[in-house]
Amino acid sequence: MKAWIITIGNEILIGKIVNTNAAWLSQRLTEYGIEVRKIICIPDEEKEIINTILDATNNADLIITTGGLGPTFDDKTSESLAKAFGLKWVVNKEALREIESKYRSKGMEVNNYRIKMAKMPEGATPLRNRVGTAPGILLKIRNKIIISLPGVPNEMKAIFEDYVSKILSSYTPERVRDEKSILVKGIPESSLAPIIDNVMSQYENIYIKSHPKGHEISGPVVELHITVYGKNKTEAKEKLEEVVNRLNNYIQQKLKNHNNEK
Amino acid sequence: MKAWIITIGNEILIGKIVNTNAAWLSQRLTEYGIEVRKIICIPDEEKEIINTILDATNNADLIITTGGLGPTFDDKTSESLAKAFGLKWVVNKEALREIESKYRSKGMEVNNYRIKMAKMPEGATPLRNRVGTAPGILLKIRNKIIISLPGVPNEMKAIFEDYVSKILSSYTPERVRDEKSILVKGIPESSLAPIIDNVMSQYENIYIKSHPKGHEISGPVVELHITVYGKNKTEAKEKLEEVVNRLNNYIQQKLKNHNNEK
Repeated sequence: MKAWIITIGNEILIGKIVNTNAAWLSQRLTEYGIEVRKIICIPDEEKEIINTILDATNNADLIITTGGLGPTFDDKTSESLAKAFGLKWVVNKEALREIESKYRSKGMEVNNYRIKMAKMPEGATPLRNRVGTAPGILLKIRNKIIISLPGVPNEMKAIFEDYVSKILSSYTPERVRDEKSILVKGIPESSLAPIIDNVMSQYENIYIKSHPKGHEISGPVVELHITVYGKNKTEAKEKLEEVVNRLNNYIQQKLKNHNNEK
Repeated sequence: MKAWIITIGNEILIGKIVNTNAAWLSQRLTEYGIEVRKIICIPDEEKEIINTILDATNNADLIITTGGLGPTFDDKTSESLAKAFGLKWVVNKEALREIESKYRSKGMEVNNYRIKMAKMPEGATPLRNRVGTAPGILLKIRNKIIISLPGVPNEMKAIFEDYVSKILSSYTPERVRDEKSILVKGIPESSLAPIIDNVMSQYENIYIKSHPKGHEISGPVVELHITVYGKNKTEAKEKLEEVVNRLNNYIQQKLKNHNNEK
């Protein structure tokens, strides 16, 4: 299952806000065995939202958007979602009931701006927001799952845990993923490169990514992040252990020889 | 001038790392009057990198990539950049000299993995990396500027400040931007929405974005972020002041009437 994450909001594009939503979602989706193929941040513009959603629908099975579900003029996600698929944008009765009851509990009536948060593409399902006001939106279309979540992090997370995690739990990944990071001190990344190539050539379905943390020449520290895939948890875990051991052996050899070799 | 930022690296897509590079770059570009239209995060895959760079070149004037410039197998940015435009991928003499001198200063010779960091699309200019080893890449092509920076934040920032900022300084923006945030307590975002609509309809080239920080109903706190554009600094500053004053007046009225209105 392949996913795209679409972050909607000018505040990301002017660097006012760091996109922690996308990082959180990527982590959670990865835990469910879903492959996040792309994260895209776009402005609050209908045309951009429509084009990006359609592009995502052509390339991914699961699309999660964040942002643009609130009451103000620049909240355009829901209406754009409807337009992208030529669906009517209608008041969802369940969502409206929920929103009305929230405002009425404080003696407030719904105005047009509040009703807007209950509008969704026809056929969509509202995902109740127990933390805030605007519900999320679930739209199943063209054999794809599109989920729109609010941009406020704690609202986004609450709807994810309440509803999205349940939808994803019913999906059984074709392969199980396991991972481990090891920290290597004293060997430049460019000297670890042949070791990584060597180990990767010995196994299928593994990936070793190096992250330099120190200075390549004057004080090398490199994090090696090992990802393995297996048919099941046990296979993945055993493979991971084997790969890490093999890597560690080569690294020990290299450290011994390092002063001679360089 | 429109820009796209392309973040290359699986670590972003599994949520291992928050994309602070893109936020930092967006902020700096915005300061130079450049409009960041899109941020895209893609995996370390040649095909994805090529397609995204071509898409960016068709839609933006300035493209900045981060990540994928190191010595390991998964560092594919430079070669993909060459392939995207059908350019030869060649050792840049200036870059090689720099890299050789760095390694030799510690008694190390260059190996193929180290030479790789000196390879660039033919015609590209290396941007010296005073913090790390792999240089950045400047490629001017099809009337567009493409800049590839390392993924390590302090290396990315150093090359930006040393070279990219100078390139951008020579560009005179068509309009000057000014901004301010004000915090509004006690009015739900859905009650501020008509005020925002009203003020935005009174001015050209302004944008008011609301960011809910509290709870819409039980304890509303909303940050209003006002962006204005003017022909010059003075015009932008004066317009910003006027817009903020007008907003504040409406907000004060609303606060007075709030208990009756709701």
